[in-house]
Amino acid sequence: MHAARALPAYLVQRFHGWKATSYAENHAWYRRLASEGQHPRAMVISCCDSRVHVTSIFGADTGEFFIHRNVANLVPPYEPDGDHHGTSAALEFAVTSLKVAHVIVMGHSGCGGVKGCLEMCSGRAPELEEKSSFVGRWMDILRPGYERIKERPDADQARALEKEAVLVSLENLMSFPFVRQAVESEDLTLHGLWHEIGAGALECYDPKKGAFVTV
Amino acid sequence: MHAARALPAYLVQRFHGWKATSYAENHAWYRRLASEGQHPRAMVISCCDSRVHVTSIFGADTGEFFIHRNVANLVPPYEPDGDHHGTSAALEFAVTSLKVAHVIVMGHSGCGGVKGCLEMCSGRAPELEEKSSFVGRWMDILRPGYERIKERPDADQARALEKEAVLVSLENLMSFPFVRQAVESEDLTLHGLWHEIGAGALECYDPKKGAFVTV
Amino acid sequence: MHAARALPAYLVQRFHGWKATSYAENHAWYRRLASEGQHPRAMVISCCDSRVHVTSIFGADTGEFFIHRNVANLVPPYEPDGDHHGTSAALEFAVTSLKVAHVIVMGHSGCGGVKGCLEMCSGRAPELEEKSSFVGRWMDILRPGYERIKERPDADQARALEKEAVLVSLENLMSFPFVRQAVESEDLTLHGLWHEIGAGALECYDPKKGAFVTV
Amino acid sequence: MHAARALPAYLVQRFHGWKATSYAENHAWYRRLASEGQHPRAMVISCCDSRVHVTSIFGADTGEFFIHRNVANLVPPYEPDGDHHGTSAALEFAVTSLKVAHVIVMGHSGCGGVKGCLEMCSGRAPELEEKSSFVGRWMDILRPGYERIKERPDADQARALEKEAVLVSLENLMSFPFVRQAVESEDLTLHGLWHEIGAGALECYDPKKGAFVTV
Repeated sequence: MHAARALPAYLVQRFHGWKATSYAENHAWYRRLASEGQHPRAMVISCCDSRVHVTSIFGADTGEFFIHRNVANLVPPYEPDGDHHGTSAALEFAVTSLKVAHVIVMGHSGCGGVKGCLEMCSGRAPELEEKSSFVGRWMDILRPGYERIKERPDADQARALEKEAVLVSLENLMSFPFVRQAVESEDLTLHGLWHEIGAGALECYDPKKGAFVTV
Repeated sequence: MHAARALPAYLVQRFHGWKATSYAENHAWYRRLASEGQHPRAMVISCCDSRVHVTSIFGADTGEFFIHRNVANLVPPYEPDGDHHGTSAALEFAVTSLKVAHVIVMGHSGCGGVKGCLEMCSGRAPELEEKSSFVGRWMDILRPGYERIKERPDADQARALEKEAVLVSLENLMSFPFVRQAVESEDLTLHGLWHEIGAGALECYDPKKGAFVTV
Repeated sequence: MHAARALPAYLVQRFHGWKATSYAENHAWYRRLASEGQHPRAMVISCCDSRVHVTSIFGADTGEFFIHRNVANLVPPYEPDGDHHGTSAALEFAVTSLKVAHVIVMGHSGCGGVKGCLEMCSGRAPELEEKSSFVGRWMDILRPGYERIKERPDADQARALEKEAVLVSLENLMSFPFVRQAVESEDLTLHGLWHEIGAGALECYDPKKGAFVTV
Repeated sequence: MHAARALPAYLVQRFHGWKATSYAENHAWYRRLASEGQHPRAMVISCCDSRVHVTSIFGADTGEFFIHRNVANLVPPYEPDGDHHGTSAALEFAVTSLKVAHVIVMGHSGCGGVKGCLEMCSGRAPELEEKSSFVGRWMDILRPGYERIKERPDADQARALEKEAVLVSLENLMSFPFVRQAVESEDLTLHGLWHEIGAGALECYDPKKGAFVTV
């Protein structure tokens, strides 16, 4: 016996609205997507945050982006230890099976996961240090980033750490043999973005400048 | 030195298009989202597949859904072992910090991850059995589901296993103490969906019938 | 011995610029396009006119649209007579081999081909009536459209005939058995657009209203 | 009653994005293009293939190229028989009305039309031999090219035939009296190109060498 319930009525209603409009108008396209399978050009790794939907920002329709979303858009290091690694599995599927041409990591302003990491690393959130804290243990991935920004003025740390979440992920991406190989053979490019929700701004990491620059 | 590159020009162009239209028209809302933080009503756990964007299907705008996407929309069992668990971290953040009212698990037709699991469990994909296969080890989560459908006719197995991916996840959700407690105190409801891409159909798990029924 | 010459230097220079920038940044994508083949979602039939590039208007990158361009964006009627029919061949390839989900016919303001047709049909361009006039014989396809607008005030005729070029093409599209069948089985949708160059406006034919309406 | 439908929403959104950015920034230019008419320097004859947009490769903006696109970038021979000839009409309009200075024929790697022609001519695609096959009858134009490459090793035939599609078209261009006259009076030059999608390479036919050479 599962604890599952019926879908809330407001979602049932909206689904029927979608089916009678967007789906009906694009019936042919959905049927082809179903019969032919997906051929996305890019994989996007972004945050679960409800305020940041990458399909909106880039006007992407169904079929364009293979999207993995986790807390703080993090990629853990390569660890082939036989355990469940959801992010690594998504990455492996995108790069080796779908052969995406781009992996885009997108961070954002006001990230709750990054804020938790900052509090944990600066000793203000002992509950996140508990072994049983999934958020704390997940945000451990970002500790190397904290080391690089901890001397900054307090007011700058959150934003700097949000950008470090992108940079640490880019570094960890290259620790996966299949990613490194695809990058080196020029079958794959990596991209790091940071999005400011309130201003609607977008910055892209420029490795030559060693900084994020406005798009 | 990171391997990052500039954003492909077509995405730069589309971003500027978004900023000049959708963002410009909703500037007030984006500013409020930034200053006030997120208050999503529901968490959705769905697949990375580029053909299934839950925001489209439910006409959801920014701020409504906290979305975790991984391969085959799986929730692993509760394992507080101190390792990185991306799905568990997203779940913990959604339920204990954001206090979402609903967790919705949505599977779909033509799922590549489920297809891989089926091939692995039936002995047709030895490469997925390797310890180093992230997709294989991730899909291990679904093995209990395979046991329940393996006697079915071959033609029905993929679809049945896609639905099992939802049911196994619903079961595993209840293994998390903070989920079980919130469900029992009626602060949280769980929902299981399966979406058929080509037909644009949606089915919801009905625990009384022990089956998925058309929405 | 061919009459061919070397490419003008300004194009050589621009090509090298493209290769060092857009191509270099998207090397991975171009390689995948080459190895995997094309999977365009839509076919667009538009005019050769240098002022109307559909990829610009819709921000479409390589791989998205299969594009046929001829004078006045015309589709001739179905005539399986064994002769060369370039438009019919493009249509057959798009619908039966590529299985596009949409065929979009886009007309535009200030169309030179339509202007010639108007002059020919109203007796002001006898040279276009010559059997040897390729433009005249091509624009014969639009004569049924002229019949429907010839009573209008002179000042309105050009624009009305530009829109008729779209409507006649939509009618002729349905004369192709493979188009009609795909439309009837809901594997294909047809769309009629008219673009005003100076105002940057776009109108879409609405069959319920029997008129073009602003997008 | 036409079978036309509303424009898919993702294209509506992208169009509005274009209008609010590229169009808004170049309003003056679009207005001048509308009021003054087009004055393109060159006509380009290229393939419908979604992976090859000549405006990208040459960084061409609106107003520069009069573009005819058909399957396999073919020009049929001069046949003033009173039938509809879309390619011949486009050519006549470009050379006699617009008085373009260059006609550029551009072929490309991985051409589906050329592949079909190869299979048809070597007896492996009887369905393309049917009188009712528009693609087959269109590709008949390239039969003289097949005769010249059929003795080559199988592995080289596709690429050789793609280049023959350019050469046959250049030959056929000279069969049009108005083209020959403009070439002989040095009012027009012809150019033959072949583009390799994956490598981003461009080759230009050199009549002195009797071969395509890298640009």
